[in-house]
Amino acid sequence: MSTIEARLSDMGIVIPEPAAPVASYIGHVVHNGLVTVSGQLPLADGALTQTGLLGAGVSIEEGAAAAKVCAINILAQIKVACDGDLERIVRCIRLGGFVASTPDFTDHPKVINGASDFMGEVLAERGAHARAAVGVAALPLNASVEVEATFAIK
Amino acid sequence: MSTIEARLSDMGIVIPEPAAPVASYIGHVVHNGLVTVSGQLPLADGALTQTGLLGAGVSIEEGAAAAKVCAINILAQIKVACDGDLERIVRCIRLGGFVASTPDFTDHPKVINGASDFMGEVLAERGAHARAAVGVAALPLNASVEVEATFAIK
Amino acid sequence: MSTIEARLSDMGIVIPEPAAPVASYIGHVVHNGLVTVSGQLPLADGALTQTGLLGAGVSIEEGAAAAKVCAINILAQIKVACDGDLERIVRCIRLGGFVASTPDFTDHPKVINGASDFMGEVLAERGAHARAAVGVAALPLNASVEVEATFAIK
Repeated sequence: MSTIEARLSDMGIVIPEPAAPVASYIGHVVHNGLVTVSGQLPLADGALTQTGLLGAGVSIEEGAAAAKVCAINILAQIKVACDGDLERIVRCIRLGGFVASTPDFTDHPKVINGASDFMGEVLAERGAHARAAVGVAALPLNASVEVEATFAIK
Repeated sequence: MSTIEARLSDMGIVIPEPAAPVASYIGHVVHNGLVTVSGQLPLADGALTQTGLLGAGVSIEEGAAAAKVCAINILAQIKVACDGDLERIVRCIRLGGFVASTPDFTDHPKVINGASDFMGEVLAERGAHARAAVGVAALPLNASVEVEATFAIK
Repeated sequence: MSTIEARLSDMGIVIPEPAAPVASYIGHVVHNGLVTVSGQLPLADGALTQTGLLGAGVSIEEGAAAAKVCAINILAQIKVACDGDLERIVRCIRLGGFVASTPDFTDHPKVINGASDFMGEVLAERGAHARAAVGVAALPLNASVEVEATFAIK
């Protein structure tokens, strides 16, 4: 078992088949060794694990858990891009984190940490990434979090 | 007539001269075969085709039509980047779609499909892209939609 | 003194040590000659220079000043990526500007111009960039502006 797969196994994480896009685009594009991953929602088994706005009923912990699900779905896309071999990951370059929030919510970093921490745990030094985290008015399907990503693979 | 130009002609679409940026930046940057296109508004003949928030008076259909106008303006930038020859397009890699929306609007994918579907129709397999679609509080000039893009060209 | 450093000196700008990320990610990633810079807040000496929403008490001028501080912090990251030599900058490729705003605010370009104009002044032709500027519901720590960036360096 590869290093990354072993860590996922230790964490009890099963990388799912990637979720189908909810619209007319594709889940990721590979070009010149870079994988651009579409914005992933906190979908598990076809249903959103978390809906609603941070600052209006959704806690930071619930938001961070949703961000982790988004990150798992990002890895699902990357796994396909790597033909199943996650060791082909060179680097997680960037995560773009969107948090559905009220205007008075200000803890977006703690929410997106759910995705960032996961990348660090699974990918170790290959998981250290640049990031933007912002609070948006609303997200598709009333999801609480959406995360997009750019990875380098070999 | 090239394939892409022929499709545009069949669709009755005229690619305009690119809209001038509304601020101190430029419409696109070409670097190492990648074109990064600035966020495009639904401008046609110098005026916005759609203003206002989705969820507050602007319908999904109107939003999708505005997204299509943004996509046409993206192609206008790409055409300049390709010195007029759209056949130099290798791939639409990513669209970033911002929908001005109320907090209770959740159909952002259907709005940004106006841009994604257009890319698929015009560019065929070269138009299959990664995407993020989010709902923002407001957009420049009260535009209903803004779309940015990354393309690979040769 | 290099050209860019001379311009900064003329402008009375001191590039600070980069601000530490407020969460579990890093300030920038260098890969294949591209620097992806994390979203920068208007932090100076460890404190935000501007908080609150545009359209609810924060003026365009205050927002633009905050965007300039974000841009200075972007250059701080780039300086580290360039081992201290800003002349290694090839191009500012893209700025992504997020303005915390009310739904009725529409002057986001004027706010983000605070960052774009700064890049143009300091980097001259190397500062001409693609850009997206949008109005988000809220930003980390109640910051008024956040700006992320992509640069090419040699």
